Amino acid sequence: MRALVLEKKDVLSIRDIDLPTVTGPDDIKIAIHTVGVCGSDVHYYTHGGIGDYIVREPMVLGHEGSGTVVEVGANVTGFKPGDRVCMEPGVPDLSSRASKLGLYNVDPAVTFWATPPVHGILAPYALHPAAFTYKLPDNVSFEEGALVEPFAIGMQAAAKASITPGDVAVVIGAGTIGIMVALAALAGGCSKVIISDVSEHKLNIAASYNGVEPVNVAKASLEAAVNAQTDNWGADIVFEASGNPKVYDDMIKAVRPGGTLVLVGLPPDRVPFNVNNAIAKEIRIETVFRYANVFDRALALIASGKVDLKPLISETYVFEDAIAAFDRAAEGRPTDVKIQIKVAGEVKE
Amino acid sequence: MRALVLEKKDVLSIRDIDLPTVTGPDDIKIAIHTVGVCGSDVHYYTHGGIGDYIVREPMVLGHEGSGTVVEVGANVTGFKPGDRVCMEPGVPDLSSRASKLGLYNVDPAVTFWATPPVHGILAPYALHPAAFTYKLPDNVSFEEGALVEPFAIGMQAAAKASITPGDVAVVIGAGTIGIMVALAALAGGCSKVIISDVSEHKLNIAASYNGVEPVNVAKASLEAAVNAQTDNWGADIVFEASGNPKVYDDMIKAVRPGGTLVLVGLPPDRVPFNVNNAIAKEIRIETVFRYANVFDRALALIASGKVDLKPLISETYVFEDAIAAFDRAAEGRPTDVKIQIKVAGEVKE
Amino acid sequence: MRALVLEKKDVLSIRDIDLPTVTGPDDIKIAIHTVGVCGSDVHYYTHGGIGDYIVREPMVLGHEGSGTVVEVGANVTGFKPGDRVCMEPGVPDLSSRASKLGLYNVDPAVTFWATPPVHGILAPYALHPAAFTYKLPDNVSFEEGALVEPFAIGMQAAAKASITPGDVAVVIGAGTIGIMVALAALAGGCSKVIISDVSEHKLNIAASYNGVEPVNVAKASLEAAVNAQTDNWGADIVFEASGNPKVYDDMIKAVRPGGTLVLVGLPPDRVPFNVNNAIAKEIRIETVFRYANVFDRALALIASGKVDLKPLISETYVFEDAIAAFDRAAEGRPTDVKIQIKVAGEVKE
Amino acid sequence: MRALVLEKKDVLSIRDIDLPTVTGPDDIKIAIHTVGVCGSDVHYYTHGGIGDYIVREPMVLGHEGSGTVVEVGANVTGFKPGDRVCMEPGVPDLSSRASKLGLYNVDPAVTFWATPPVHGILAPYALHPAAFTYKLPDNVSFEEGALVEPFAIGMQAAAKASITPGDVAVVIGAGTIGIMVALAALAGGCSKVIISDVSEHKLNIAASYNGVEPVNVAKASLEAAVNAQTDNWGADIVFEASGNPKVYDDMIKAVRPGGTLVLVGLPPDRVPFNVNNAIAKEIRIETVFRYANVFDRALALIASGKVDLKPLISETYVFEDAIAAFDRAAEGRPTDVKIQIKVAGEVKE
Repeated sequence: MRALVLEKKDVLSIRDIDLPTVTGPDDIKIAIHTVGVCGSDVHYYTHGGIGDYIVREPMVLGHEGSGTVVEVGANVTGFKPGDRVCMEPGVPDLSSRASKLGLYNVDPAVTFWATPPVHGILAPYALHPAAFTYKLPDNVSFEEGALVEPFAIGMQAAAKASITPGDVAVVIGAGTIGIMVALAALAGGCSKVIISDVSEHKLNIAASYNGVEPVNVAKASLEAAVNAQTDNWGADIVFEASGNPKVYDDMIKAVRPGGTLVLVGLPPDRVPFNVNNAIAKEIRIETVFRYANVFDRALALIASGKVDLKPLISETYVFEDAIAAFDRAAEGRPTDVKIQIKVAGEVKE
Repeated sequence: MRALVLEKKDVLSIRDIDLPTVTGPDDIKIAIHTVGVCGSDVHYYTHGGIGDYIVREPMVLGHEGSGTVVEVGANVTGFKPGDRVCMEPGVPDLSSRASKLGLYNVDPAVTFWATPPVHGILAPYALHPAAFTYKLPDNVSFEEGALVEPFAIGMQAAAKASITPGDVAVVIGAGTIGIMVALAALAGGCSKVIISDVSEHKLNIAASYNGVEPVNVAKASLEAAVNAQTDNWGADIVFEASGNPKVYDDMIKAVRPGGTLVLVGLPPDRVPFNVNNAIAKEIRIETVFRYANVFDRALALIASGKVDLKPLISETYVFEDAIAAFDRAAEGRPTDVKIQIKVAGEVKE
Repeated sequence: MRALVLEKKDVLSIRDIDLPTVTGPDDIKIAIHTVGVCGSDVHYYTHGGIGDYIVREPMVLGHEGSGTVVEVGANVTGFKPGDRVCMEPGVPDLSSRASKLGLYNVDPAVTFWATPPVHGILAPYALHPAAFTYKLPDNVSFEEGALVEPFAIGMQAAAKASITPGDVAVVIGAGTIGIMVALAALAGGCSKVIISDVSEHKLNIAASYNGVEPVNVAKASLEAAVNAQTDNWGADIVFEASGNPKVYDDMIKAVRPGGTLVLVGLPPDRVPFNVNNAIAKEIRIETVFRYANVFDRALALIASGKVDLKPLISETYVFEDAIAAFDRAAEGRPTDVKIQIKVAGEVKE
Repeated sequence: MRALVLEKKDVLSIRDIDLPTVTGPDDIKIAIHTVGVCGSDVHYYTHGGIGDYIVREPMVLGHEGSGTVVEVGANVTGFKPGDRVCMEPGVPDLSSRASKLGLYNVDPAVTFWATPPVHGILAPYALHPAAFTYKLPDNVSFEEGALVEPFAIGMQAAAKASITPGDVAVVIGAGTIGIMVALAALAGGCSKVIISDVSEHKLNIAASYNGVEPVNVAKASLEAAVNAQTDNWGADIVFEASGNPKVYDDMIKAVRPGGTLVLVGLPPDRVPFNVNNAIAKEIRIETVFRYANVFDRALALIASGKVDLKPLISETYVFEDAIAAFDRAAEGRPTDVKIQIKVAGEVKE
C-alpha cells in the first residue's frame, strides 16, 4: 500500500509499504479521506523520536483522520460501507484495569497510530476497531472530521476542568492546542477565555472567536489582565497549553483561591514549581493525557454549530504533496494553525 | 414609601406603607429600577399563599430586581452610590452550618423577599446586604439585570447537573423556568437541548434559540425524539421544569444509562416514582432549590453575549400600572415569558 | 456436569446438565468452592422469575462464588492454576459505550449468572473472563470470597454516596444488603451508621458491629433518633436498603440540607415521592445497580481487617444438601444473614 | 492577662499582657484548658517568622486549643457556660466571595491565632466566634479536643483526596502531620496506608496503628513497596506530608494511572516537578491549606472510636512550664509526636 513513510529522522518518502489488510471481526476498514498534520508527526520527522519513543524502523505517519467505511468485521454492528467516519487513534486493552474504570487513555497497553512502532494512517486504507470509530453527522465534513482528534485534547482538558457554568478561564499559549482548549472551554461552559501568547499572529487567530480575549504577555501582565476582568478575584480555571516552564508562577497568580490549573502542554524539562503558593490558594491541578470518551461529544458540539473548527484549516495538500505539507508544518509559521492532507476523494459504495 | 402591596388574596393596591429606611453597616440602599413579575408573586396574589407560606399581613411583592446604589453602609467596600446593581433576594445566616458549607440557599434561617412575612421590592427603595448585591457590567441593562434572578434558577440547575462538555440535554416544560434552564444548559456546556411541551407557542419561543430543538409531546413521543437524536443511547441529562407528575416515567425513559435527572419543577402532590427503573439505569437525581453562588456567573454569561435574555421580556409596565401587570401575568398567556415593571428611571448621583 | 438446577418455579433438582466446557482465550476455568445463596436465587425458586426475567428453561442457580483456577485461556496473564479467586458475575460488552465510560454495570448487553437464560455456578466448574475474576489475598478465605459479591453492592452504594470522611449515615433496613451497606459505609469513611428496622433480631446482628447504632422503628422515630445524634442537623447520607415504599418520607426527614439519599432496595411498585420536600432540602439522590470496579476494593478492605464478614455466615451446607439450603433460605428466618453452599474442597494443582 | 508571650525571635516569657476581654454579640468567652504546641508555634519561636509573617510585636502563641465556655454573646445560641469546646483558630469574613462558596479557609481576609499580628491562646481566656467553636462530645477529653486542630489538617487532606472506599494510600513523611493524614485517610475510607520516612522511631509510632504499613526509604524503595502491595498498579492516592522536594519523583512513580496526589507539606523552595510524567499518568493533584468544615467531622470520628489520637500525646506540661514545653518541642525528638500544655483545670459554672 502506498503511504507516507518516515524512513528515519529527516527522511520522508511516499512509497509502497506492507500494511495489514485483513479486517478482524471487531474491526472496520476505512478508506482514508483527510489527515491532519500534528506537531507530534512533525517532531518525529525532525527529531526522530519523542521522549522514549524512538523511530527505529520506517513508520507511516498521521493519526488525525477521517474517511469512509469500506468493509466491516463479522461482529461489527452500527456501521456499514459508505458511512463517513473519524477515528480515535489510541486503542487500549478493553479488559484492563484502567479501561474498566473508564480511563482507557492511561491503560499502559494502549497502542497509538504513528507512535513507534505503530504505523499511522497516511495511506489509502486503515483498519481500526469499531469501538473507536465514530460516524460523522451529515453536516460535519471530512475536513472537520480530521480535526476532531486535536479538538479532542481540548475537550479532555475542558472535561477535566469540571467547569461550572459561567467560569472565567485563562488559556496560556495560542498555538493549535491552545486554541482547541479555548474553544472547548467556551463551548463547555466558560463565559470567556483570556488567552495569552507572545505572537500577535496567533492571538489574532484566537481572538477572531467570540468570547476569546487576547493578552500579549510580551507587552502586558497576565495577572493584571485577569484581575481587571475578574474584580481582582482571579480566573476560575487556568489551562497551560504552551509547555513553557516559565509560565507556572503566572498561572498560580492568575487563578482564584480554590481554583483549578489544567496542564496540557509538555515542558522540555522539569518545572520549578512553587508548591507553597499553590497550597496558599488551595488550588487543584488536573493533567491531560490525550482523551477518553470525548469523540462523540466533540462531534456533537461541531454538529450543533457551537464549535466552528473550519477557520483553523490553514492549508490543504493533496497526498502527492504530503512531504511538502510536512515541510510547511515544520516551518512553524505563526499564521498557520492546521495543515491537512487530502488522501482521497469520497468513496462511494 | 409607596409600594405595590398585596393586601390579601386577590387584592393588590399601590399605597404608602412603612418600610425600613436605615441602612445597616453591611447594607446597601438601592433605588429600584426594574422588577420582574415571578410566578410565585402571582401565586401569592391569586391564592394567598404557597404551601406553608401564607399571606397573613399586607406584603409588598416583587423579588426579581435591579436598581442603582444610593447609599452604602459603614462597612461596605466595593460599592458606591451610582453603581448599577441586581440583587439576590435570599439572605441566609452567614454563620450557619449550611452557609459555612457553601450551601447558603438551604440554610433554614434564610429570609427571602416577597415570601411571608418578608416584604418584596416593588417600591422606590430597598435595603440589602452588600454580600448579596452584584454590580451590572456596563453592557448589561437594568432590564436584563432584573432577569438574573429567574435565570439564576436555570444556572443552579445547570451547575447541579455537572454537565460534561458536549452533553445532550432534555428540558421538560417550555415555560419561563424551562427556557431559563435550557439557556443555562446550553451556555453551560451542552451541545443541544431537546425541549418538550404541549404548547406550540411556548415551543416556538424556546426554539428561536440556536441549539434548542422542540418536541410537542401532544403529537410526538419524547423517547422517540431523544432516541433519534442520540443513536438510541438516551440524553445525558434530563431537566424537569414543568412540575407535571406525569412526566416522571418519560424522564427515566429519556435518560441514558448512568445519566442524570435534575428536578426543578414543583409538582402539586407526591409523584408516583418508578424507583426500579431508575435503579436499572443507575441514574443520579439532583434537586434545585433557588440558587447559591451563581449571580456572578449568570452576569458573566450575559455580559459575554453567550446568553441573550432580552427576547424573553414580553411586556414592560410602568409602576403605576403594576396591578395591570399582575393581572396580565395571572392570565398566563402562552406567548408571554416575562412581564416586567419599571419602577423608576436611572438614578444619577 | 452435576449442578443445582431450577427446573421451574418451586422445583429444584441436583442432576447432570450440559454446561460449556471449552475455556476461551480470555477465560479462566474455575473449580467452584463456595457459593452463597442470594435473595434473587431464592426468588427465582419461589416465584419463577423477577420482573421481566422469567425462568422458561431449566437454569443452574448461584452467582456469589469463589473457587480455584484450574485452567487459563491462551491470552490470560496474571492467573495460573491453583490461584484462589472470586468472580464478578456480570459480564458486559467491554467495547460498548457504557463500558468505555467505566459504567459497565449498566451496559444493556451485560449477562449475569443465574439470570435467565444464563446459567449460574452451583456446579463443579465455571468458565469466566479473567477480567472479571479476582485473586483472593492469602488471608481471605473461600467463604469470605463468596461474600464479596453481596458486599460489593454495599461497596457500590458507599462509592455512589461520595462519603466525606466523618459523615453520619442512616441505613434503612437491616437485612443482608442493609448490613453490607452499613459495613461498607463505615469502612468507606462514615463516623457512624444509624440502622433502622422493625426486627429486633436483625438489628442485634447489625449492632454487633462497632459504629452501628440500631433504631427499632416499630418503637421509636427515626427522625428523632437522627436529630438526637446530629444536633438536629440531619444525617449526611441516608441509604435505602429495605425496598419499603413507606420509608421514603422518613428518608427526606432524616437527611440534612444538601444531603444525599442512596437507593439500593427495590420497591414492589411505584413509590409516592415527595419531590417538593426533596427540593426544599436540595438533596441529591443516587441509585445503585449491582456494582462496577469494586471487587478489588472490597477484597482490600476484607484483607486489611477493616471489614469482617465472617459473622454474617449463618449456616453452611454441603452441595448434596443444596436444596435444603434453598428451603432454609426461603424461610427467611430473621436470625439468618447468609446461607452458603460448599461445592467442593480446595483443589490442589 | 497572664500569657505565654513570644517577645521576639528566641525569647519567650510568661507575663501579663493586654488582651481583649469584651465578649462581642456573636462571640464566646472560653476558659482555656489545654493547648498543643504546633510546629508553626515553634518556628515563630526559633526563626521569628514564617514566610511573609514576621513577628514584629510581642505575640501570644498557641492555636490548638480546648476549654470551657464561661460567657456567651447576646446573639449566640447553642452554647452555654460550662460547655466543653474546642476552637477552629481561623476566622474568615463570612460575607466574602470565598466564604459564600464554602471555601472560607482561603478567604484572603482570614485571621488566624498566633499568626502575626494576631495573638494566640496560651492564656487563661480567649474570645472566639461561636460559628468556629465546637462542643466536645462527652467521651472526648480536653486533651483530645486540643488535638482536633492538627487532626483537621489530616481530615482536610482526606476530604480533598475524594477517597473511594477501599483505596490504597501512601503517606510520605511520618511526622505529626503525616500520622494525622494517615489516620484520617484510614478512617476516611482507605483500606490501608503505606507510610514512608527515614526515621525508624517515627515509623514505629505510625505503624502501631492497624492498617498503617511502614516503609523506611533509607533502606527500601517506595515504588517497590507500593508495587508489591498493589499488584504493580500503584497507589490510588499519595499524600505528601514531608515538605521534602526530593520525594516528588517518587510520588509520581508510586501513584496509579489516573490516581491522585495530595500536597500537604510545605517545601523550603520551588520543587523541580516532572510535569510530563504526571501527564503521562493523567494524575490529579490537590493541595491542602488548613481546613474548612471538618472540625465537626473530626470530632465525630474521635467520638465514635474510629480514630484514637490519645497515643500521640507525648508529654503534657503545666502552664508554668510552657517555655520548657517549647524548648522540648524545638528539640524535635524523633519519638515525640505532640507536646501539650495544660493551662487550667476544668472550669465549673
